[in-house]
Amino acid sequence: MSHSIFSKFTPKEPKFFPVLKEMSEVMVKAADLLIEFITHYDHATAADYYKKIKEQEKKGDALANRVFDELNKTFITPFDREDINQLSSRMDDVTDYINSCAKRMVLYNPSRMPESAVTLAHLIKDGAVCIGKAVDELDVMKKDPKHVIAYCQELHEIENKADDVYEHFIIDLFENEKNGVELIKLKGIVYELEKATDVAEYVGKIIKTIIVKYA
Amino acid sequence: MSHSIFSKFTPKEPKFFPVLKEMSEVMVKAADLLIEFITHYDHATAADYYKKIKEQEKKGDALANRVFDELNKTFITPFDREDINQLSSRMDDVTDYINSCAKRMVLYNPSRMPESAVTLAHLIKDGAVCIGKAVDELDVMKKDPKHVIAYCQELHEIENKADDVYEHFIIDLFENEKNGVELIKLKGIVYELEKATDVAEYVGKIIKTIIVKYA
Amino acid sequence: MSHSIFSKFTPKEPKFFPVLKEMSEVMVKAADLLIEFITHYDHATAADYYKKIKEQEKKGDALANRVFDELNKTFITPFDREDINQLSSRMDDVTDYINSCAKRMVLYNPSRMPESAVTLAHLIKDGAVCIGKAVDELDVMKKDPKHVIAYCQELHEIENKADDVYEHFIIDLFENEKNGVELIKLKGIVYELEKATDVAEYVGKIIKTIIVKYA
Repeated sequence: MSHSIFSKFTPKEPKFFPVLKEMSEVMVKAADLLIEFITHYDHATAADYYKKIKEQEKKGDALANRVFDELNKTFITPFDREDINQLSSRMDDVTDYINSCAKRMVLYNPSRMPESAVTLAHLIKDGAVCIGKAVDELDVMKKDPKHVIAYCQELHEIENKADDVYEHFIIDLFENEKNGVELIKLKGIVYELEKATDVAEYVGKIIKTIIVKYA
Repeated sequence: MSHSIFSKFTPKEPKFFPVLKEMSEVMVKAADLLIEFITHYDHATAADYYKKIKEQEKKGDALANRVFDELNKTFITPFDREDINQLSSRMDDVTDYINSCAKRMVLYNPSRMPESAVTLAHLIKDGAVCIGKAVDELDVMKKDPKHVIAYCQELHEIENKADDVYEHFIIDLFENEKNGVELIKLKGIVYELEKATDVAEYVGKIIKTIIVKYA
Repeated sequence: MSHSIFSKFTPKEPKFFPVLKEMSEVMVKAADLLIEFITHYDHATAADYYKKIKEQEKKGDALANRVFDELNKTFITPFDREDINQLSSRMDDVTDYINSCAKRMVLYNPSRMPESAVTLAHLIKDGAVCIGKAVDELDVMKKDPKHVIAYCQELHEIENKADDVYEHFIIDLFENEKNGVELIKLKGIVYELEKATDVAEYVGKIIKTIIVKYA
């Protein structure tokens, strides 16, 4: 609406989509590192893995800040300002939870890593890849939202699977781990993994809200 | 204001209040089930109770989604869009905490349920009933807010009582429960109960904010 | 903009800045009490200290409510309504975390207080003082934001230091505290301290957002 009036006075529409795409790549990279870290969990290499994941987390932060700054400078945005900000903030949260899990692994130094943690790390990776595909479709979504809708559905299913894995882990942990300190360590670490899949699903919900508004 | 101009072009004002009322009924039902579950806590029937509570939680979710969808479709709303959304989201949170408590009871499988848990479940029920009464008054609130104000005050008092119960529970737990794993279980379960009364009070605060704006 | 048209019909711009200043003083006072409480931690005097800190927390709450009420009554605000509300809410959170830490000390009744808790309490005090200085500059910030920017940077550095202290505390705790119950107590208490510095940094971020908009 205001486009016709203001377009010549406002800067060119910034490229939000490529930045969001970069954020999803950071997420995938962090998830790959986490899978390696958890699968080959070893106190000797833990600090190294955490450092590498932390680098991704910082990249993600910088990208989210770029989105935020651009939003404040830009008059016309492809979707509601607040929706883009939510989308990038929640995408950043996925990477944050991956980082936070890695950090806890280093700080808590548990004596073992449960199999469920490996499974959850793989589900996080699946979610990150799925978000990447959804982001690829954002610019054509107004014309044809069906692929994006399918990706949002997939994120929901991933979260359901993660829920299941987490619940079985908790039941098993409380039944079999008699060492209170070790229980606290593992519960705290695996909790962050489950949170990462939660927030990945939430990214899908934000995208669905955008679809409702624009598609 | 815009009413006179736009009313014939916009769809009929949706019935937000009946949906909110239904949400409060779901809350009361979930609270009743929780009281039963906690009072007769027994590992053999735990999964059944959780299943029944989970059904209420799903109903609550569906109702909250209905409110959200209606808000996105509706031009004229009885109160600020954001206030109605907040109100329904926080009401949904009460049911979510009830569900989450029940879920933890099943997953953690504690060896006993403390008396304070029973007391807190009753306070949650009181809060849910109180929210139901407040919701009944929403449509006449602009003319006469005094009943609603009294219900909000009651929610505040319920939360204060719950705080007291929770604090005494925590003091007792840390003093007398020497089994670390059992302590983690009970702390985690009772925490969700206290959170449910917190968020019920928060529902009252949102209603008070609406009163300030409109009454 | 609307100033010229509406100013004679609207009440005089309320004094938000003095209320925010008072809030920062409450924060500093609460932090001072917390330093004393933690440094001379003793079960016999714990309830007294908590009572004094609780008084500050109530003052902070009352001030935050005053800001909120004024915002709802005021037509013209020095900054965006939502930014002022965010600023006062997050400032209030700092005092809330101080209070919550003191409360946990009373409820959990740990057998010792770690040195890191003293260090963190001092960092909270530094943050509170820094917020106070930033608030002093809010009214001249539009002309000269450089001091405020420096205070925001300082809040960021304080949080980084607190992160370091907290991480070392956690590593040490999980390595050396073999009593699960005692570990839960100390972890829960020190966590609140670290959160207080987090939210103090967040206050800085809100101020920076305001600078971007207005300065």
